[in-house]
Amino acid sequence: MNATVELLLSHRSIRKFENRVVPEDVLQTLVKCGQAAATSSNVQAVTAIHVTQADTREQLSFLAGGQPYVATAGAFLVYCADLRRSMNACESQGGEFSPGMMEHFLIASIDVGIAAQNTVVAAESMGLGICYIGGLRNKPSEVASLLKLPEQVYPVFGLCLGYPAQNPEVKPRLPIDAVLMKDVYDDTAQAKLLKQYDATLREYYKTRTGGNKDSSWSEEMKALVGKESRPHMKSFLADQGFAIK
Amino acid sequence: MNATVELLLSHRSIRKFENRVVPEDVLQTLVKCGQAAATSSNVQAVTAIHVTQADTREQLSFLAGGQPYVATAGAFLVYCADLRRSMNACESQGGEFSPGMMEHFLIASIDVGIAAQNTVVAAESMGLGICYIGGLRNKPSEVASLLKLPEQVYPVFGLCLGYPAQNPEVKPRLPIDAVLMKDVYDDTAQAKLLKQYDATLREYYKTRTGGNKDSSWSEEMKALVGKESRPHMKSFLADQGFAIK
Repeated sequence: MNATVELLLSHRSIRKFENRVVPEDVLQTLVKCGQAAATSSNVQAVTAIHVTQADTREQLSFLAGGQPYVATAGAFLVYCADLRRSMNACESQGGEFSPGMMEHFLIASIDVGIAAQNTVVAAESMGLGICYIGGLRNKPSEVASLLKLPEQVYPVFGLCLGYPAQNPEVKPRLPIDAVLMKDVYDDTAQAKLLKQYDATLREYYKTRTGGNKDSSWSEEMKALVGKESRPHMKSFLADQGFAIK
Repeated sequence: MNATVELLLSHRSIRKFENRVVPEDVLQTLVKCGQAAATSSNVQAVTAIHVTQADTREQLSFLAGGQPYVATAGAFLVYCADLRRSMNACESQGGEFSPGMMEHFLIASIDVGIAAQNTVVAAESMGLGICYIGGLRNKPSEVASLLKLPEQVYPVFGLCLGYPAQNPEVKPRLPIDAVLMKDVYDDTAQAKLLKQYDATLREYYKTRTGGNKDSSWSEEMKALVGKESRPHMKSFLADQGFAIK
């Protein structure tokens, strides 16, 4: 196992940070690593907004559902899917932008995930810790207005970066046989694997919380997909010009 | 600059591979690295299908628009966004799955990007080369039927992996000031940066193709977003149960 593989396998989210700013030149290197990742048709539909104002950080922390590390991490980036730059470039060539395509929405959103993950790997290789903040999608209109995001840009998630002040355990993942299949999709053997993972995860939570958290993956999934989730997203995205057709 | 940052910055897609299979245990390690990445609410909505049958590889190569390396790479994975596993887990707890939420579609699709990129970084750290294959979305229904993908699963992209038989240059990216902004979205200075990048990219293509390719980023964007792109995607996704509401 080489050092990079070891680094990747040792990831865990960090939610407590030292009171130390991540310097701007470090951030630039991290974002350049994100840019270096593959991008669909070279679209590079990713814009990172580095939020430096303390009051904006506080407001984002509140909008994300009260996650204090949004305000306290050594740096906070808001990752946006950005087709506006492509639209402008297209129009500069006399083209007419075709708005609202699901495919364009998809490539932009996936580009953001791919680029951000490269930034995360680079950060962790430097000893920084990270935490993705999907909670920005609780109040995406408010986030968009705070950051003055125009049409064809939307906030996908936030990213806390900083010097770790905690050292949590790595969280166990699904058994490999549940997620890597051969030739065709086949989940006939999955019920048994999920039961096994449910037990592993329950044990992990018990140990980690001194017995306070008693839950399994299947219970987590019931809470996550057993109800409507952020039902405002579709109309918010449409307002920003995404995924209409 | 540490070795991981150097690795990330040296990425380029590989489209010619040695005639050497990527062993199954290596693939397992690579997919485990993908699993180790952050995942929204622990949903782990990623399934990779390892396509080993030569005729299936040939058909996928054709469906992707005639990309021969889909058939010739040392391994080919189809990355699927998978909410079916979560649905089954939810129902095993007596929950009722809430189908078609845009938010669930989004977390699953982004999870795929994040996990796949970790796999890519791991692969490149071992000296393998990779190429993402978005072309599978040219004919997603045919791909889904070939791989027997059920509802709540869709193919996001393919991934070629293998031992490189070429050593292309790194492709220049947008200037950092165009993609990293401070506090608010501000593209007022962007036209100048794009012009600069257009010239850089035109030069890169000329050098790389011996003068045969003469194009700029703005021209590429006109071709990409200046027309409808994969207009079947919205209804295909709806058929698979995604992004309906």
